[in-house]
Amino acid sequence: MRARAPASSANLGPGFDVLALAVDLYVEVEIEPAGRLVVRAEGEGAELADDAGHLAARVAIDVAGHDRLAISVRSDIPVARGLGSSAALAVAAAAAAGSKDPLSVAARVDGHPENAAASVVGGLLAATMVRGAVRAVRLPLDEGIALVAVIPERPLATARARQVLPQRVGRADATFNLGRMALLLAGLADRSLLVKEATEDRLHQDYRIPLFPEAPQLLSAFVTAGALAACWSGAGPTLVGLCDAADAERVRLSMRAATGEHGVKAAVQVLHPDVQGLVIDGPQWGERPGSGPFDLLAGDGPGGA
Amino acid sequence: MRARAPASSANLGPGFDVLALAVDLYVEVEIEPAGRLVVRAEGEGAELADDAGHLAARVAIDVAGHDRLAISVRSDIPVARGLGSSAALAVAAAAAAGSKDPLSVAARVDGHPENAAASVVGGLLAATMVRGAVRAVRLPLDEGIALVAVIPERPLATARARQVLPQRVGRADATFNLGRMALLLAGLADRSLLVKEATEDRLHQDYRIPLFPEAPQLLSAFVTAGALAACWSGAGPTLVGLCDAADAERVRLSMRAATGEHGVKAAVQVLHPDVQGLVIDGPQWGERPGSGPFDLLAGDGPGGA
Repeated sequence: MRARAPASSANLGPGFDVLALAVDLYVEVEIEPAGRLVVRAEGEGAELADDAGHLAARVAIDVAGHDRLAISVRSDIPVARGLGSSAALAVAAAAAAGSKDPLSVAARVDGHPENAAASVVGGLLAATMVRGAVRAVRLPLDEGIALVAVIPERPLATARARQVLPQRVGRADATFNLGRMALLLAGLADRSLLVKEATEDRLHQDYRIPLFPEAPQLLSAFVTAGALAACWSGAGPTLVGLCDAADAERVRLSMRAATGEHGVKAAVQVLHPDVQGLVIDGPQWGERPGSGPFDLLAGDGPGGA
Repeated sequence: MRARAPASSANLGPGFDVLALAVDLYVEVEIEPAGRLVVRAEGEGAELADDAGHLAARVAIDVAGHDRLAISVRSDIPVARGLGSSAALAVAAAAAAGSKDPLSVAARVDGHPENAAASVVGGLLAATMVRGAVRAVRLPLDEGIALVAVIPERPLATARARQVLPQRVGRADATFNLGRMALLLAGLADRSLLVKEATEDRLHQDYRIPLFPEAPQLLSAFVTAGALAACWSGAGPTLVGLCDAADAERVRLSMRAATGEHGVKAAVQVLHPDVQGLVIDGPQWGERPGSGPFDLLAGDGPGGA
């Protein structure tokens, strides 16, 4: 069976550990019965493959209950850059291995339900744990929004990016993020309402600056270049500008120049929201699994459990 | 000039200091030129009137720049119960005194921009301070939602309800509220998605239990009675159940019994969202000011500054 899942940009400033937006970079996983475990990988992350240790293999073995599998992975999603590559890979691998609940599998393996939910459902998701289960809701997204992503060459492990965060925060910082997240959700639903303050955050971004000292200047450069707002993508180091789609190419060119000026080696590319989420190889590409995992996912779809 | 503003239920669980929902209890203020300051008050809060010290007088004098005013106040909004009576009164008084920006006046006087924004705009609002100014967005609200309010006889001053809150909180509690607020906003936009966990909170409600020890049992009773979710209203002591409007009367009757069982003297009534917000006495009641203050308020309306 074959399955494809999109990357995702999580947190988006104030929505720390909650929000994620699916974007049009994809990982595709194909799994067939075989005499023994074989993993073939192409594209991003291919150099990481060592068969039994590969995330796709661990997920597929977990789902299938055995390791007599031939697994092919082809990915466009840069690894350890804050674009949810692990969650997307886990979602696609779980689905390709026949799981009826790739969201739960991926959330358990990857630890990021918001990325996993975006990779399964597509669009803008909020996810949180409710009594040990992922509960996710799809939120309205203005289709005229595009992202410009600055994807640095050097990776940044999420675990390291979390170590720098404080265990306790001021109550005022907690309510600051609640207010900003409300502004952000209104702005993502209608880009005419998206203001640069909507991506301000006091829970994670500033603490991570020592890991990427040029980040604040590049975030400012995004707004100067015409982005409506800008933020870290996931745990970084990727930074994204939320743009009117009509301005995205212009913003991309400005940010290519800005990364050069700041001496940051990075790919700068326009990404669009993915609104399909996980697609599996049914009669044709583009079919979404119609039952099972989606019962957990409320929002545009049917009500959840 | 005459102006009317609705009460509001703020916080709604996770949306601490950010969310407020306008409800159909009203305060009406009429202000005319006079030889000297006269304040007449009827209804809720009437016993508090002492002319120059009355909140309506303070706001009106501030707006008018003098005290030669005859001020009439008529209110249905119980005072110091967590229903935004001060914000609503300040909004109505500012508008009746001729202010073009009652939101800013009320937010400054009352200190609660979310209540003030709900009283000005109506419906479901999120408000926060951005560079010293109120920024508010109107968020989608399912018209089939009604509230059942348990309004205890004994008041609870907001200042006292804030003293019990800790200055610092766990980062996990901050992200818990972000996740719950996203679930709540999805559920308020579409009641079929509203789950009881959506009003869970870790920033204020539990800390306030010593001020109202019966609150947890009454909140549970709401859900047992058929409310979709339940929470404190503002700083309390009012508790509200968010209900399918079709179930509200049944929930009200159950909660009347529950308050009796727990020995809590309280009015129990069904409230409906107000979606008009501030109305001023133009050619007829029902006219909304069309300019000025609403530029600050983005959401369903035109984009904000």
